[in-house]
Amino acid sequence: MRLVSYHTRDDAGVGVMVDDWRFVALNRAAPELPPTLKGIIEAGALSAAAAAAEGREPDYRFDQVTLDPVIPDPQAIWALALNFKLHIEETGLTTSKDFPQIFMRMPCSQVGHLEPMWCPDRKVAETYDYEGELAVIIGTPGRHIAPNRALRHVAGYACYNEGSVREFQNHNRQFGLGKNFERSGSFGPWMMTADEFGAPPRHTVITRLNGVEKQKSSLEDMLFSVEQVIHYLSTGYLLRAGDVIVMGTPGALKPAPGYQPTPQDSPRIPGRTHMKPGDTCEVEITGLGVLRNPIVADPTPRET
Amino acid sequence: MRLVSYHTRDDAGVGVMVDDWRFVALNRAAPELPPTLKGIIEAGALSAAAAAAEGREPDYRFDQVTLDPVIPDPQAIWALALNFKLHIEETGLTTSKDFPQIFMRMPCSQVGHLEPMWCPDRKVAETYDYEGELAVIIGTPGRHIAPNRALRHVAGYACYNEGSVREFQNHNRQFGLGKNFERSGSFGPWMMTADEFGAPPRHTVITRLNGVEKQKSSLEDMLFSVEQVIHYLSTGYLLRAGDVIVMGTPGALKPAPGYQPTPQDSPRIPGRTHMKPGDTCEVEITGLGVLRNPIVADPTPRET
Repeated sequence: MRLVSYHTRDDAGVGVMVDDWRFVALNRAAPELPPTLKGIIEAGALSAAAAAAEGREPDYRFDQVTLDPVIPDPQAIWALALNFKLHIEETGLTTSKDFPQIFMRMPCSQVGHLEPMWCPDRKVAETYDYEGELAVIIGTPGRHIAPNRALRHVAGYACYNEGSVREFQNHNRQFGLGKNFERSGSFGPWMMTADEFGAPPRHTVITRLNGVEKQKSSLEDMLFSVEQVIHYLSTGYLLRAGDVIVMGTPGALKPAPGYQPTPQDSPRIPGRTHMKPGDTCEVEITGLGVLRNPIVADPTPRET
Repeated sequence: MRLVSYHTRDDAGVGVMVDDWRFVALNRAAPELPPTLKGIIEAGALSAAAAAAEGREPDYRFDQVTLDPVIPDPQAIWALALNFKLHIEETGLTTSKDFPQIFMRMPCSQVGHLEPMWCPDRKVAETYDYEGELAVIIGTPGRHIAPNRALRHVAGYACYNEGSVREFQNHNRQFGLGKNFERSGSFGPWMMTADEFGAPPRHTVITRLNGVEKQKSSLEDMLFSVEQVIHYLSTGYLLRAGDVIVMGTPGALKPAPGYQPTPQDSPRIPGRTHMKPGDTCEVEITGLGVLRNPIVADPTPRET
């Protein structure tokens, strides 16, 4: 099952996808269920949602709604840095082999599928980058979760574009604001339940900028697996229903022989192209779907 | 005016302090006001709250309620690392002189005044440290806020104990989980409105462990001022009503001559003593108040 969070001018709720474009609105099919996806997961009501949507005609198409981040209101978004070997090499940064490198994103730094992501004004920053990643959504809460039981705590998976403003990320030792610019990331298109997605290492993450593949890696190549990261976080923190773990991004695909770099290309990392207004960025995870966002100029360049 | 967030078994709301121990419940004095402190700040209703509480008898004493973090549900908690010269020297870490070092805390990593803070089980971590800090609470939202207008965006101030689990903070380059252990920090005792608190540099922050002064510094000694940090964050992020900025902690006070270190003392930083169950930690900001918390063992040492 694939579920979306959406709103319109006078409606808001959770949808169960019928195909890649249309969904059943659960507040019509099952008004007794909680009104948010986090609430449905907390209530253990994913099966009830599936049963309620079964066989119903779709209520909405994607072009009739605004899609929200898959979980608009998580208690926490944990994100991994440097979790793919090629990305570690290209950044020239060191990272521990024993413990994952973890930072936080805030909910207001992300948008949903098809919604504009904001590119900083050029006077603020010039290097705004895509990072295609797997997002893990927690179902069953837990502390001190053993790795071999970790996947039982997962409700589902989604694509994540962990958009990053490199100058700010590199201003100091902690990433801070560089990973939390207003509407700089994206989370969608939907949550695919864990039973349907299967084992993460069998999938591949692909990032495309204006249709050109820029990143592509098997999820087998993660330094720290989903199981290991769930185990690690739960040593200190009660993982809660709806929490999100974003698993880190792979390195850049090398450009084709003879490729002429443009002013948007990173001078340091061949194959990395900074995003600019007018671009379209896609993050695909095979077997899951494609998260697509237009890039627009931050509409707030001056004091407000 | 000083305001608290509280709950009891059958009540929850915002209080206006009458003295250091008793408060007027705004849901009785002014039921038309929003039910949370963030809501009151957003609605620009601080003056209405003051007027409603004026001259009323207190409804509750602190021993009749559970005090919540001053803002239990902020959109974001921005925290500064290495913002006092002595703390930079004692850690041996480098930090930028041009840009503040920023990381994030999550709401569930903090508790309110008098509530127990959780010390990790010794099998998980042995160095759990206090960090006494000034918390800034945003009132008026804004982007690209000029430093000379920044303090107009502040609703008030509070004390913060930015409790940190050092092993986890040092596992890798980003602090991540080490700053976000369950109930590891504290935020209180109340918000003092900006008009009453006055200019931050006139105040001093003091941290006491079991009554012994461990940190003491004028807020004049911050590398980056409140104004500079508000300006910096608002270049990329819309600061929102109720957002919290935690301004960083000073270094350790040197122990008295002839002091015999205990097993809880840091072998590397003279005067720093790790917290353990049974301790009481206080963070005082002069002219504002004292935030006090008992330290208890994390009650969740095993898989749940």
